[in-house]
Amino acid sequence: MSSNQITIKDIARILGISASTVSRALKNHPDISEATKKAVNELAKKLNYEPNAVALSLKHSRSNTIGVIIPEIVHYFFSSVISGIEDVAYDAGFTVIICQSNERYDREVANVKALLSHRVDGVLVAISKETHQYDHIFAIQDRNVPMVFFDRVIPEIETDHVIIDDQKASYEATKHLIDGGRKRIAHFAGPKNLSIGIERRVGYEQALKDANLPVIPELIIEADSFEKAIKATNKLLDMENPPDGIFAVNDLTAIGAMQTLQKRGIKIPKQIAVVGFSDGRFSGITDPTLTSVDQHGYEMGSVATKMLLRRLLNPNYDAPAQSHVLDANLIVRGSSI
Amino acid sequence: MSSNQITIKDIARILGISASTVSRALKNHPDISEATKKAVNELAKKLNYEPNAVALSLKHSRSNTIGVIIPEIVHYFFSSVISGIEDVAYDAGFTVIICQSNERYDREVANVKALLSHRVDGVLVAISKETHQYDHIFAIQDRNVPMVFFDRVIPEIETDHVIIDDQKASYEATKHLIDGGRKRIAHFAGPKNLSIGIERRVGYEQALKDANLPVIPELIIEADSFEKAIKATNKLLDMENPPDGIFAVNDLTAIGAMQTLQKRGIKIPKQIAVVGFSDGRFSGITDPTLTSVDQHGYEMGSVATKMLLRRLLNPNYDAPAQSHVLDANLIVRGSSI
Repeated sequence: MSSNQITIKDIARILGISASTVSRALKNHPDISEATKKAVNELAKKLNYEPNAVALSLKHSRSNTIGVIIPEIVHYFFSSVISGIEDVAYDAGFTVIICQSNERYDREVANVKALLSHRVDGVLVAISKETHQYDHIFAIQDRNVPMVFFDRVIPEIETDHVIIDDQKASYEATKHLIDGGRKRIAHFAGPKNLSIGIERRVGYEQALKDANLPVIPELIIEADSFEKAIKATNKLLDMENPPDGIFAVNDLTAIGAMQTLQKRGIKIPKQIAVVGFSDGRFSGITDPTLTSVDQHGYEMGSVATKMLLRRLLNPNYDAPAQSHVLDANLIVRGSSI
Repeated sequence: MSSNQITIKDIARILGISASTVSRALKNHPDISEATKKAVNELAKKLNYEPNAVALSLKHSRSNTIGVIIPEIVHYFFSSVISGIEDVAYDAGFTVIICQSNERYDREVANVKALLSHRVDGVLVAISKETHQYDHIFAIQDRNVPMVFFDRVIPEIETDHVIIDDQKASYEATKHLIDGGRKRIAHFAGPKNLSIGIERRVGYEQALKDANLPVIPELIIEADSFEKAIKATNKLLDMENPPDGIFAVNDLTAIGAMQTLQKRGIKIPKQIAVVGFSDGRFSGITDPTLTSVDQHGYEMGSVATKMLLRRLLNPNYDAPAQSHVLDANLIVRGSSI
């Protein structure tokens, strides 16, 4: 970046407000007051802040590449997202280059720097769990490089995004168990500091409430690893009144539950039904096969890329940032019916 | 690439020999005759073919990025390789950008084009199964961009590479079953047209021969998918004299075997022991846990990147192409002892 170019951060510093407020004010976001918008736009004009100028100068030197920043390639979900991205991108004549942040802030910053210096035409980002500062993301906006977030969203940053309705999916998964006659459904919950953990738990509790079933705190156990799931299942089975169903926050914990149940002679699904989340590589090869939520990674990648291309190929398209929420649906298999 | 620069392909066309011969002659490969080397070098000199010149001109504009071309990110093995690459590269101050060929020749060509036009400082490649033409790879050599192959090797191209000794690993896996007292060991084999399929089968047969056990054709069944493994296991169990051990070409087929054995009331490992290949996401979460070959993906990525950096950081380092063969070792778990 040229050092004498005005950035969102400069405007923020001068006005004593946050960069995210400047970003949103420039994009005419409804949450920002008219007074702030006026101040931001006046200063931006005075300082010749013109992200479009950079974009226009690059218009004729398109690199025909789309950059993707992904937290962890090893997850089946993210590798499905990449497939969806690539199929849409290659069809449109773009090559996809991928950077992995490995859930690390420092690598994510290096990734953005590399992609921008390689002049990618657009960026697709799933932010790392460790990222709480966004200067590198504002740098993308300063350059006016089209950007779409997927799976993970930062409310402070105004950009197109595609997410999954985790809460609704959990609601459906729990309701499926209730519809099958289960009345004491346990939940293996994710960590409380992650939104997916919270959303999935909320969906589970709501489904119980809507069916007039009690939410029983002892039946909700934080367990997001294979080992923790084994321990949690043993704990549930040692109760005076064990559950008749388990809704697990992911497939790995659901498999841990199934193995423990089988070791202790419990019939699945007859005595206890099991449902997982994030239909991955495992669900088809367990015995019985595992009912699980399909997160539609391929579709997420495909939709995100279409949103990106819409802006990238039509520089005059200036609609406000859009949110696309995908429904995740339950794939019913042997572990629950 | 500038259109008036002389390439390996030009020299090949003029001399009526293959580009790979030119590539190897320029690198002083022992398989190429002195006469051919002389002809190639004389013409190269006459035409001012100087790959180093391009490299030198770029020396001061290092992008500090390493490009990786990988067939399929979804495989645990390849995602481990990427982790190994990234840890070494980031430690050395390089960012890694990844392209996925998806086992397609056309995408691999597009990947190379994108990486070269982004001026990556070095390239790590695992060639796609579909690739049988190598002009895009020669283009990397023409630019004198350091390149290391991993996992898959093209004999025609003279470059550093890291591979795994599949045959030796299969030998060890089979020997482990023999040492445990098994005398009728079946093998689920990979396709005959893939080198890993052949290598693994050869290792299996050699271990039997060295132990004076017969190679029984009926016990070798081509089965490289979960479904085929279920079918193959049923076939083995229906024999008059079923096997007492199964060595499967990969973990997925080993799991298919285990499930089928358990469904038919066979005790693992007491009655039939099972060994898989390519220690992945599955081996620790089956019941019993699965004995399998650890392919050391992380180490492969790490070694390949070190080989690349050695050339990249020392432009005067001109040792001939080197082959690094990694030992894969068996992780013994409950399915075999």
